[in-house]
Amino acid sequence: MTLTPPARHYEYERDGAAIYAESFATIRRESSLGRLPADAESVAVRMIHACGQPSLADDLVVHPSLVAAARSALRQGAPILADAHMVASGVTRARLPADNEVVCLLRDDRVPDIARAWGTTRSAAAVSLWGDRLDGAVVAVGNAPTALFHLLELVLDGGPRPAAVVGVPVGFVGAAESKEALVAFGADHGIDLPFLTVRGRRGGSALAAAALNALAQERE
Amino acid sequence: MTLTPPARHYEYERDGAAIYAESFATIRRESSLGRLPADAESVAVRMIHACGQPSLADDLVVHPSLVAAARSALRQGAPILADAHMVASGVTRARLPADNEVVCLLRDDRVPDIARAWGTTRSAAAVSLWGDRLDGAVVAVGNAPTALFHLLELVLDGGPRPAAVVGVPVGFVGAAESKEALVAFGADHGIDLPFLTVRGRRGGSALAAAALNALAQERE
Repeated sequence: MTLTPPARHYEYERDGAAIYAESFATIRRESSLGRLPADAESVAVRMIHACGQPSLADDLVVHPSLVAAARSALRQGAPILADAHMVASGVTRARLPADNEVVCLLRDDRVPDIARAWGTTRSAAAVSLWGDRLDGAVVAVGNAPTALFHLLELVLDGGPRPAAVVGVPVGFVGAAESKEALVAFGADHGIDLPFLTVRGRRGGSALAAAALNALAQERE
Repeated sequence: MTLTPPARHYEYERDGAAIYAESFATIRRESSLGRLPADAESVAVRMIHACGQPSLADDLVVHPSLVAAARSALRQGAPILADAHMVASGVTRARLPADNEVVCLLRDDRVPDIARAWGTTRSAAAVSLWGDRLDGAVVAVGNAPTALFHLLELVLDGGPRPAAVVGVPVGFVGAAESKEALVAFGADHGIDLPFLTVRGRRGGSALAAAALNALAQERE
């Protein structure tokens, strides 16, 4: 098969590097990033890039230690634990500093039985299967509020503690509430858990993956 | 390893079916869906579910034949061709009516060389590798505006025509423009291409996957 490019019918930017540069410049011009920790700016930019909405900056909450904690954990080889395969799929492997494992256990054979026995969702049940790997891991919840609530309950029960939590479940039932529980976790329970979240209903796997990709590598 | 559930520290809905039902009811209450083709309502609901924003309905444009064309193609075994691995990853295989192939060629070995030779992005180059599989396929562009422009240029060049195009690239450079080109394609070029899009900057792999999952199966 000999491939030839189609004729140019439309005028558009075709240079990948130029597209990124212009995108990030537009985001910085249109977003209010000054409220965030300085080292979280590039994370915010990438998340805004993933959803096309500068207003996301207004709902972002980033713990002052989040970026340093996540970067340090990843450099030391910590795994990334994701609640959804889309989140795991969105992590650019070449950006990871230590060829880190990216794990999603939602399709583990044990999940349906555990979820049924415990009266919870499969997403929450899969979080329990992380087991001791949770200790020092970077967690990314991009889909299920129940996964984030379940994670917080595991930590409250004295379970292993992740190094950093990207907690951005999306939706209309429990999403906003689970993220408020994450924001208030330190004050409510005296446990300092570095986190990043988006208040309200917005969130999703693309935002979670974008945050992970920015945390994995400082270079834009 | 004996697993036990954590103690309940938070009150939240843990029943997956109840979460879906309540979510979809909230979306229908808060969104203006009346402007859309009747058979596209469930597609819109699932896309709004994926981003947490009822306002998405206002930017949705759905060709009157899109839903019927996509469903018919999928029932007949058409492949789903995606511009990004996250889109492919988000397709729930159990919903597909004919065990349809879900294809993303972004990591094909030939892509970097083609992109360099043609002076375009890897996402656009990968679209050309779809070749004859494009004929009658369901295409989903959830990431790159250049992939959508490239697809339209292939069709204008007399290449194979997809049965349906879910065209929801996201971002700040070319995204809105590529989607306007998709909306205007029939009027501009006299080629009737069933499509679904979201005007403006919003879009992304989660929205593309949500649309595909709704098209794959009518049951919510």
